[in-house]
Amino acid sequence: MKGMVQVYTGNGKGKTTAAMGLALRASGADLRVFIGQFAKGQEYSEIKALRKLGNIDVRQFGRHCFIVNEPEEEDIRLAVEGLEIARQAMVSGRYDVIILDEANIALFYNLFSTAELLAFIEEKPENVEIIITGRYAPQEIIDRADLVTEMCEIKHYYTQGLDARIGIES
Amino acid sequence: MKGMVQVYTGNGKGKTTAAMGLALRASGADLRVFIGQFAKGQEYSEIKALRKLGNIDVRQFGRHCFIVNEPEEEDIRLAVEGLEIARQAMVSGRYDVIILDEANIALFYNLFSTAELLAFIEEKPENVEIIITGRYAPQEIIDRADLVTEMCEIKHYYTQGLDARIGIES
Repeated sequence: MKGMVQVYTGNGKGKTTAAMGLALRASGADLRVFIGQFAKGQEYSEIKALRKLGNIDVRQFGRHCFIVNEPEEEDIRLAVEGLEIARQAMVSGRYDVIILDEANIALFYNLFSTAELLAFIEEKPENVEIIITGRYAPQEIIDRADLVTEMCEIKHYYTQGLDARIGIES
Repeated sequence: MKGMVQVYTGNGKGKTTAAMGLALRASGADLRVFIGQFAKGQEYSEIKALRKLGNIDVRQFGRHCFIVNEPEEEDIRLAVEGLEIARQAMVSGRYDVIILDEANIALFYNLFSTAELLAFIEEKPENVEIIITGRYAPQEIIDRADLVTEMCEIKHYYTQGLDARIGIES
């Protein structure tokens, strides 16, 4: 099975959720999944559920809070280390699917460069699938991907002033 | 917690996958999920994985093959019955999240009407979240929803002539 590079981007809801759904589907077919989450350090509900399934390893490469304006040195260090950990996982032969959740956000904040992510993709073994999520996917990543879906926000109730709800948004 | 109506539509990849990711997340937060899949009768990989998790009931309301041109009577019967089964699940108080996977496709093929789906939504208990997926969401459903994401296809490798791959697409 030839692996592809998939990108989920755009300002709409469902990018990380779709990647978690892909992890779920892959697990259901006994594929082995590595999930690296950039710019995140919080154990969200979907991660708790994924840990109950077999064949899924999850690592988080961010602090416990969001980057607000400028990233701190710690954000950069965690992301750079994370990309290397994910690279080692990808080339180890132990995984069929590598998910780089919010890698586009890591690029947006210059935690690592687009060139570094492209170099990562170049090392992809033939059979491995790479899934990249996060808004603001740069054109070079879109050009390199086999499948790109843009989640377009048509309507969003956050704009109605509600907080994220446990089990629904987080 | 006030439940919302979410719609995932558009021609891009990730609509059902995002809904399955939402089921996963809800399960991780100990919410109870009912999934009704319209126009589908095949046990996809993600369903196999979801069945391993707690709190998730899955029902399929379609035949084992896709509707090609015109729906058959059996397609209509299964969908109409399915909507009633999902309605009973929704009003039973036993679920926090009701997923109507490919309900927009059911509308597209006139398996039931937009008015019937709107009537279904009207019966939603306050705390229940409804997730509706499928391309071609009609405007009346979009108008009624609290959150609408359109998955826009930017690039798709199906166009490169490949079949769906087990664990990745199905």
